[in-house]
Amino acid sequence: MARTQKGACLVVGVGDGVGSAIARAFAAEGYEVCMTRRPRHLDQLEALAEQIRADGCRARAYGVDARQEAEMVALFDKIEAEVGPLEVVVFNIGANVRFGIVETTAQVFSKVWEMACFAGFLTGREAARVMVPRGRGTILFTGASASLRGKDGFSAFASAKAGLRALAQSLAREMGPQGVHVAHVVVDGAIDGVFTRQMRDDVQGLLDRDEILKPDEIAANYVWLHNQPRSAWTHEIDLRPHSETW
Amino acid sequence: MARTQKGACLVVGVGDGVGSAIARAFAAEGYEVCMTRRPRHLDQLEALAEQIRADGCRARAYGVDARQEAEMVALFDKIEAEVGPLEVVVFNIGANVRFGIVETTAQVFSKVWEMACFAGFLTGREAARVMVPRGRGTILFTGASASLRGKDGFSAFASAKAGLRALAQSLAREMGPQGVHVAHVVVDGAIDGVFTRQMRDDVQGLLDRDEILKPDEIAANYVWLHNQPRSAWTHEIDLRPHSETW
Amino acid sequence: MARTQKGACLVVGVGDGVGSAIARAFAAEGYEVCMTRRPRHLDQLEALAEQIRADGCRARAYGVDARQEAEMVALFDKIEAEVGPLEVVVFNIGANVRFGIVETTAQVFSKVWEMACFAGFLTGREAARVMVPRGRGTILFTGASASLRGKDGFSAFASAKAGLRALAQSLAREMGPQGVHVAHVVVDGAIDGVFTRQMRDDVQGLLDRDEILKPDEIAANYVWLHNQPRSAWTHEIDLRPHSETW
Amino acid sequence: MARTQKGACLVVGVGDGVGSAIARAFAAEGYEVCMTRRPRHLDQLEALAEQIRADGCRARAYGVDARQEAEMVALFDKIEAEVGPLEVVVFNIGANVRFGIVETTAQVFSKVWEMACFAGFLTGREAARVMVPRGRGTILFTGASASLRGKDGFSAFASAKAGLRALAQSLAREMGPQGVHVAHVVVDGAIDGVFTRQMRDDVQGLLDRDEILKPDEIAANYVWLHNQPRSAWTHEIDLRPHSETW
Repeated sequence: MARTQKGACLVVGVGDGVGSAIARAFAAEGYEVCMTRRPRHLDQLEALAEQIRADGCRARAYGVDARQEAEMVALFDKIEAEVGPLEVVVFNIGANVRFGIVETTAQVFSKVWEMACFAGFLTGREAARVMVPRGRGTILFTGASASLRGKDGFSAFASAKAGLRALAQSLAREMGPQGVHVAHVVVDGAIDGVFTRQMRDDVQGLLDRDEILKPDEIAANYVWLHNQPRSAWTHEIDLRPHSETW
Repeated sequence: MARTQKGACLVVGVGDGVGSAIARAFAAEGYEVCMTRRPRHLDQLEALAEQIRADGCRARAYGVDARQEAEMVALFDKIEAEVGPLEVVVFNIGANVRFGIVETTAQVFSKVWEMACFAGFLTGREAARVMVPRGRGTILFTGASASLRGKDGFSAFASAKAGLRALAQSLAREMGPQGVHVAHVVVDGAIDGVFTRQMRDDVQGLLDRDEILKPDEIAANYVWLHNQPRSAWTHEIDLRPHSETW
Repeated sequence: MARTQKGACLVVGVGDGVGSAIARAFAAEGYEVCMTRRPRHLDQLEALAEQIRADGCRARAYGVDARQEAEMVALFDKIEAEVGPLEVVVFNIGANVRFGIVETTAQVFSKVWEMACFAGFLTGREAARVMVPRGRGTILFTGASASLRGKDGFSAFASAKAGLRALAQSLAREMGPQGVHVAHVVVDGAIDGVFTRQMRDDVQGLLDRDEILKPDEIAANYVWLHNQPRSAWTHEIDLRPHSETW
Repeated sequence: MARTQKGACLVVGVGDGVGSAIARAFAAEGYEVCMTRRPRHLDQLEALAEQIRADGCRARAYGVDARQEAEMVALFDKIEAEVGPLEVVVFNIGANVRFGIVETTAQVFSKVWEMACFAGFLTGREAARVMVPRGRGTILFTGASASLRGKDGFSAFASAKAGLRALAQSLAREMGPQGVHVAHVVVDGAIDGVFTRQMRDDVQGLLDRDEILKPDEIAANYVWLHNQPRSAWTHEIDLRPHSETW
C-alpha cells in the first residue's frame, strides 16, 4: 500500500517491462499513477491498473497514441482536471529496430522517430506546460546506449534516441531554472521481461548471476531522481549490469 | 577552370552560403556538381550553376524537396544515369529555429526534423545505395554546435541535429569497412553571407578580424575530407573562428 | 545512531565539506568510517571523528599523505586488519586552481595532478587489491565539471580531473565483471561550506533559493550508488543546483 | 626540396614513425624543423636530420628529456635565438602500456603521465610563452582512442591521454582569442612502422588493403590543420583506417 497520498504521476509507454515497474514504483510512493499504452492494448493496461489497485495503490489506464498532438494535449488536460496536478511524468516508449542502412525504408525511419523521439517531445512539452506555472515537477526520459553513439545497423534507432537525448538536455537547461527537474536515464543492457525470455533461453542464468537488468531495480532509480531536492539534481545517469562490457 | 574531369558530386541544400561554396569547391576540383534546392528557388540555383559553368566548370541545378523519398530516389537514379557515378554526396540542409519548449508546436518540431535529419537520412541512404556496390565514395554531413549538445530554446533544432549526427556515426561504422567514407563537420559560429549581413551590422568588422566563418574556407575542409586516403579517414571535425568561445 | 553494523568505509580527503558529509552519511548507514586528511590537519579530523562517535556511530581518523604509495598501502592493510573488510572507498581530494597557462609552473601542474589524479589512482588500486578477491565493494570518485571539458585558465585542474575520470572509467570496465562497482560523481556548481562562505557573501540567499549544492545532499547520492544492486549499476551521475547553467 | 623558407617548427618526440613523418612534412613545407628525442637516441635523430637535409630541407636534432622543465625552457629559448620564431609546435610523445590495475605500480602510472601528459604541458606552455606575444602560431597534440575513454587494462595510459586532451582543450579556449591555434589529433588504430612490423606479421596485407595508418598520411593532416586560416580553425579531428571498428 502507498505510504501517503501524493499528486499524479504519468507514465507514457507502459508495456510489461520497465514502464510497468516504473508505474508500480511511483504508485507505491503514493502517487496516483496514470499509464498510457496504444488503444489496442488497453485491456492489458487495465489489468495492470487493477493489480496496482489490488495492492492498495491508485492507478488509471489510458489508451493513447502518444504521437498524436491532440490526444496528448487532451490527456494532460484530463489528468490535471480529474486526477490532480502532475508531479512526475515519465516517457518510456522505445522502438529498437536493427536494419542495414540500404534496407531502412523511409517509413521505418519515420516510425522509429515518431515513437522514440517525437512522442517524447509531445510528452515533455505538455509536462512543461502544466509544471512550469507551478514551478515544480519532474520529467524523466528513458534512454539507451544508442542514445550516446551510433552503431552499424542502428541508423534509425540511434538517430531517434540521440534526438530524444538532445531534447532532454535542452529541456533540462530551459526548465531547471524554472524549478522543473528533467533527467535522462541511459539503460544499457538486456532487461528481464516477457520479450527477452521469448528471445533468449539463458535468462534464468543471467538473473542468477545478476547479469541482466531487472525492471524493479531500474524503476527505483527513477524514484530516486524524482526525490532529489532541487539543490542537487542529476540530469543523466547510466544503468547497466556489472558484467556488461561497454 | 577545373583541373581534371572527375565523376559526379551532389550537394543537397544549396542556398547562397555554405552549400554554394561547397558546390563551387568540388566543381573546381573537377567534379560535375549537381545541386539541389527547393523547387520554388530553382531560378536562383540555375543562376549559380550558370556562374560555375562560366568559370569553366560543370554544374547542374535540380529543384527537389529533399524530404520526399520518391523525389530523392529519382534524383540519385537520374544523376547516376545522366551525369555519372556519384563520388561525393554532401548533405547541407539546416533549419535553425529558436523557440521555448511550450511555444514549440508539433508542426515546428516535425518540420525541423524533416529538413535537418530525415532529409539527411534519405540522402545518406541513397548515397549508400549507389556507392556501396562500387566500394568507394564520400558522404559528408554539415553539423552545428547544437549537434553536440542541447540548449535552452533549441529543443527542436538540437534534437534534429543530434539525430543527424547519430545517423552519420551509424553510417560511418557500417560503411567504412565497405569502402565508403562518412564524415560529419561541426560548423560552430556565425557564417558570413547574405542572411548574416541582414541580421547584423558588424559583419565587416568580424571579417576584418577573422571572427566569422567564411564559406569558402569551410568548403575547403569538405574537399580535404573527401581527398583523405582510406587508410586515414576522419569521421568528425569542428570548425570555428579563433575568437569563438565554446 | 547507525542502523546495523556493517564493514569498513574509507573516505580519502575529508575536509569540512563534502568529504565530511560523505563520512557522516556512511557512518549513519552502519559502516565504521575511516577518514583521512593530511597529517597537519589531523586534530580537526579527530574532532570530526569524535562528533560522529558522539552520534552513536563509528569513526576513525588517519593522518595520511594520499600521494605516497607506501602510506596508502599501509593504510589499507591497517584498516583491513584492525577495522574489517572495506566495503566502500571514496576518493574526494580536489585541487581547484586557476592560472593562465604561461603562469602555470611545472610545480603547480604536478601538485594538482598528484592530489587530484595520482592519489586517486593509489586509492583505486589499493581498493581493487582488497576488493577483487572478495568479489564485492564500491569505489566512488568525486569529479567536477572540469572532468568533462577543459576551459580557459583550467589547464592544470581540467587535465588532472579528466585524468581521474578516465581512470575511473578504466577501473569500472575492468572491475565490474569482477563484482566491484566503480562510479564517478560529477559535482557541478558551488558547494555550501566554510570556504565558500569566506569567498562569497550571498551564500544565505543561495541556500534559501536552493541555488547552491549542500554537502549532505551530495553525500546521499554516494550512499545511493553504493546501495545499487549489481544488476543495475550506475557509472556516472552529475549533480548541480536547479539554477545552474551548464 | 622545400618550397619557400618559413620559420621554425618543433616536433617533440621523434621516433621512427609518426613524429618522423610529421617532421619531414613540415620540412617539405619550408619550415626549419627542430626535432627532439631522448639524449640516448640522439645518434638516430641526427641521422634523420641528415636525411632531411639531403632532400634539400632544413632540420636540426636535439637530445632532450621533455619531462624536465629547465631543459624545455632552454630548448625553446635556444630555437627562438638560433633558428627563428616558432610557428608550429607538435607534441608527439606516446607511452602506450597495458596493465591490470593491481599490477600498475605507482612508478608506471607516474612515468606514463610524465611522458604522455606532463611533457605535453611543458611543450604547450613554452609554445604559448613564445607565440602569444606574436599573436600567431600552431600547437598540435597527438592523441589516441584512449584519449576519449577509459578501458580495461588502460588505467595509466587512458588517464594520461585524457589529461593531455583536457590540457589541449583548455589551451585552445585560452589561446584561440589570442591568435594561437591549438588542435588535438585522435589517431585511432595501428600505425605502420618498425615497431608494428616487429609485433605483427600481417602488416603487408594490412597495407595492401589500406587497413593500417600510414605515418605520411597522418602527417599530412597536421600540415592541413596548421594551414587553416584563423577564421575556420579545427580543434579536434580523428584519423583511422576505413576498416577500423570503433
